[in-house]
Amino acid sequence: MTEPVRVSYGELTKLLATIFRKHGCSEHVAAILAENMALAQGDGAHSHGVFRVAGNLGSLDTGWVDGTAVPIVEDVAPGFVRVDGNNGFAQPALLAARDLFVAKARTNGIALLAVRNSHHFGALWPDIEPFARDGLIALMMVNSMANVVPHGGNKRLYGTNPLGFAVPRPGTDPLVFDQASSTWSNGDVQIARREGRALPVGVGVDRNGQPTTDANAVLEGGALLPFGGHKGSAIAMMMEVMAAGLGGGDFSFEVDWSRHPGAATPRTAQTIILIDPGRGAPRDFSARIETLIAAIHDAGQDRLPGDRRYANRRDAHRDGIPLDPAVAARLRDLAAAEA
Amino acid sequence: MTEPVRVSYGELTKLLATIFRKHGCSEHVAAILAENMALAQGDGAHSHGVFRVAGNLGSLDTGWVDGTAVPIVEDVAPGFVRVDGNNGFAQPALLAARDLFVAKARTNGIALLAVRNSHHFGALWPDIEPFARDGLIALMMVNSMANVVPHGGNKRLYGTNPLGFAVPRPGTDPLVFDQASSTWSNGDVQIARREGRALPVGVGVDRNGQPTTDANAVLEGGALLPFGGHKGSAIAMMMEVMAAGLGGGDFSFEVDWSRHPGAATPRTAQTIILIDPGRGAPRDFSARIETLIAAIHDAGQDRLPGDRRYANRRDAHRDGIPLDPAVAARLRDLAAAEA
Repeated sequence: MTEPVRVSYGELTKLLATIFRKHGCSEHVAAILAENMALAQGDGAHSHGVFRVAGNLGSLDTGWVDGTAVPIVEDVAPGFVRVDGNNGFAQPALLAARDLFVAKARTNGIALLAVRNSHHFGALWPDIEPFARDGLIALMMVNSMANVVPHGGNKRLYGTNPLGFAVPRPGTDPLVFDQASSTWSNGDVQIARREGRALPVGVGVDRNGQPTTDANAVLEGGALLPFGGHKGSAIAMMMEVMAAGLGGGDFSFEVDWSRHPGAATPRTAQTIILIDPGRGAPRDFSARIETLIAAIHDAGQDRLPGDRRYANRRDAHRDGIPLDPAVAARLRDLAAAEA
Repeated sequence: MTEPVRVSYGELTKLLATIFRKHGCSEHVAAILAENMALAQGDGAHSHGVFRVAGNLGSLDTGWVDGTAVPIVEDVAPGFVRVDGNNGFAQPALLAARDLFVAKARTNGIALLAVRNSHHFGALWPDIEPFARDGLIALMMVNSMANVVPHGGNKRLYGTNPLGFAVPRPGTDPLVFDQASSTWSNGDVQIARREGRALPVGVGVDRNGQPTTDANAVLEGGALLPFGGHKGSAIAMMMEVMAAGLGGGDFSFEVDWSRHPGAATPRTAQTIILIDPGRGAPRDFSARIETLIAAIHDAGQDRLPGDRRYANRRDAHRDGIPLDPAVAARLRDLAAAEA
């Protein structure tokens, strides 16, 4: 592999924001997307960092997503915030609701945010980690575009439908996981295809529903499988209910971008539940979580979910975010191009 | 297999209640446990029906669980109900909080119930299905006793930590799933041992952490594995945080019944989140769920989670609950015995 170039968070964020602005995003939206993507890249998530620039631009250029959308926040119940993303990206919609949402969680002990008509094309942990840094437990459920067959089925139905969970740990980084309901994320399969790597058995099927290790066969008419058989399939279904069903957004199988060739972002729905352990837990919640984490290590699991991301982030803050030189050059070209 | 005898719900409930009373339960607790167990048996859940009588009696007889406990319900925040089970069974604790909990969910759109110091030794669906029949979405998270190794670890840490999810469907049975975070439930492994069946590869490990298909090796010093590798392991961890951590109960690895030989019920914690889709969903939630279910069938998944249970229940209401004759005789003996 080519030696990576290193860019600072400031530089990468500025480059990305310029690119998104040139492709139709407002200043505000471009800044949010750029910061989100630079964070994912610095965390070492190659399938959710700058790798996703092209998909975002495809959606912007074909008019599938509105880069200038202003989300509408509705306060529908004491514990329930609803947002119409107005066909924009999910992250600005989440940010628009954030203060109201956090206030409700602190007042009631628990609150729910349901965002619809919004495009989530990134990792979940950048969305939920900040809540945990504010002392709240966050549970996030997202649906995406149909590329997963239900267990026992023969047709794409669910999205990779990620589940994210973040737990506060005062004085140190939150405990955060973010995992697809499918064996692999779609981005990881795309990267395997690009790099010419075979997939492990059990990750996907071809267009005839037959097991395959060919990334191309999975991406072109084939499908991913849910992780863990019928149990992962049930979780993928739960994501459809909790994100699209409850929030009023589209199910993964309803995403129709046939008139927007090149679009890549799913216009679906995102739900977050926030819990304030300070309002309810009868024992010292933080101390109890440290007891749990010590026991996990003691049971021989060296690494917690998120540990590798935090290590990458520290390295990136010290040395710069590593980028493939060709990718860095491409980003600079995109940023310099005429709009 | 011997031809089963058939008993009515009324007869089985009465038998079980008599047994539980004779082993130290109050009328109230005995009736709740009996109804719960008869429902599970009628639904065809052999690992959660009368099979669990012995374990419950073991806990009662050794004084590990208090069959007369009166739970303490605390209204700690507008959306948060907390219950101290007072070392009793979980189901009476849940019932004691039910009206307050449902009222909070309807008022706020979402509410949380955290029960601790309570023994859950049954299926989850009997707890959550009634909420869905009342039009609410229910998400239940429970931890139990350490018999699952975390992914990458070498020691029992998590319980089988089930996740339950129930969705209302007006005019028909709710959509409900209830699944362990482990490959199999402990009860199913016990039944395999009793019947001399080998386990599939990947279900469990022996006391040296080596893969085994021997149910006995899993139960005697060995352990179950999480379903779906590191993703199922993360879900098992989430159950510990959400049930024991948030609710203030014991983690699965903290359960210490060494001074109560024969005890089998885990004294841990149970958390339920209730959501009122009528308060928040901008489209007709019920119609959207039917759209999702039609799409699941169309994708070739014939059976929804719960379908088999509902079919068994209809059969049992019509023909009686099928019981192995030896089991039925044993129950009659227990009910007739001197206390």
